[in-house]
Amino acid sequence: MRISDLSRQTGVPTATIKFYLREHLLPPGAMTARNQADYGSEHLRRLRFVRALTTLGQLDLSTVRELLVAVDDPQLSRRGLYEVVHRALFRGEPVASDTEGSERAAGEVDEFIDGLGWQVDASAPGRGTLARVVTALQRLGCELNVDFLVPFAVAAEQLALRELDLHSKEGAALDRGAMVARIVLFEVAFAALRRMAQEHLLVLRLAADA
Amino acid sequence: MRISDLSRQTGVPTATIKFYLREHLLPPGAMTARNQADYGSEHLRRLRFVRALTTLGQLDLSTVRELLVAVDDPQLSRRGLYEVVHRALFRGEPVASDTEGSERAAGEVDEFIDGLGWQVDASAPGRGTLARVVTALQRLGCELNVDFLVPFAVAAEQLALRELDLHSKEGAALDRGAMVARIVLFEVAFAALRRMAQEHLLVLRLAADA
Repeated sequence: MRISDLSRQTGVPTATIKFYLREHLLPPGAMTARNQADYGSEHLRRLRFVRALTTLGQLDLSTVRELLVAVDDPQLSRRGLYEVVHRALFRGEPVASDTEGSERAAGEVDEFIDGLGWQVDASAPGRGTLARVVTALQRLGCELNVDFLVPFAVAAEQLALRELDLHSKEGAALDRGAMVARIVLFEVAFAALRRMAQEHLLVLRLAADA
Repeated sequence: MRISDLSRQTGVPTATIKFYLREHLLPPGAMTARNQADYGSEHLRRLRFVRALTTLGQLDLSTVRELLVAVDDPQLSRRGLYEVVHRALFRGEPVASDTEGSERAAGEVDEFIDGLGWQVDASAPGRGTLARVVTALQRLGCELNVDFLVPFAVAAEQLALRELDLHSKEGAALDRGAMVARIVLFEVAFAALRRMAQEHLLVLRLAADA
């Protein structure tokens, strides 16, 4: 199909598709004439992948490019793929300089993770994120410590288990790109559900108060 | 205290604090000399708020400014405050043009939300996000429909209930800025927990396979 067909099928403007081609986010099409190329279903799938991750996933193009390299690397295990996705998702979070004494919280987070029985690498960026969240909230006057997060951790584990079962069931049947997209987009979906649940419960509570 | 004290206490560079002052994210200090101003605990708290939301929350400055306006508006109810925060968090998600026939999914999402018994506004942006996620994943080859999200919704409701109880218990004692920061940062914390849970379960599964 032509570039205009790709555009029609996905709703992505032709100029944007050309930009993705120049940026090597899409492989070149097969040249059929001096100024015309033919694109196949692989282009369509890849275009959808790039689009889902940049719009819904709000990832930048260089991050999406890294994810594509990982998706295309047959040597990379499923665990390796997860690591690349996690690293991409944590991108853009703050570095250590601006963290206002979260060392104590870091120790608490490490104990918390141990207490959950989770086997998580000592350098996992999530540890630092949790420590920074707890510290920031305490400094803003919230009286809470990391134990407040226990039910969050329980829910996180349940959902992760469910997702992983889904991946295992499909096994090699599912395209690796689809698997990566699913990891990213389930996060987006969960955040949306959480905000709607908050709205719903506020409505209920206001009705009860009235 | 001086601007250098604000910087020392928070780890935020003086130049950044000056930028926030110019951008009206922080109110001016009390002038004590031609070139010197005095800052108080309110500046410190506000600086921490701006910093937590821009670094950990990854919100842009204009969004943080809107949140500050909402925090400072005594007429705005708690529900109104939540609405402003939700709108801010959904900012930057795609508009309708590039959604590849998610109309059918939109209907399914509406049924799904009704089935949960959730009272969520018909215009809540979360509905569109869910529809786009489901559509994007289906187009990428994942065989799933919106019902897969039931356990996600259950977990979302539990966590939202817990958070809301926390807000209610504290009542007026908690600063509104801290409440807003908590809504945003709990999302960040949950995402971090989810990624660590995925890592943990992958490690377990690999150990079981070996």
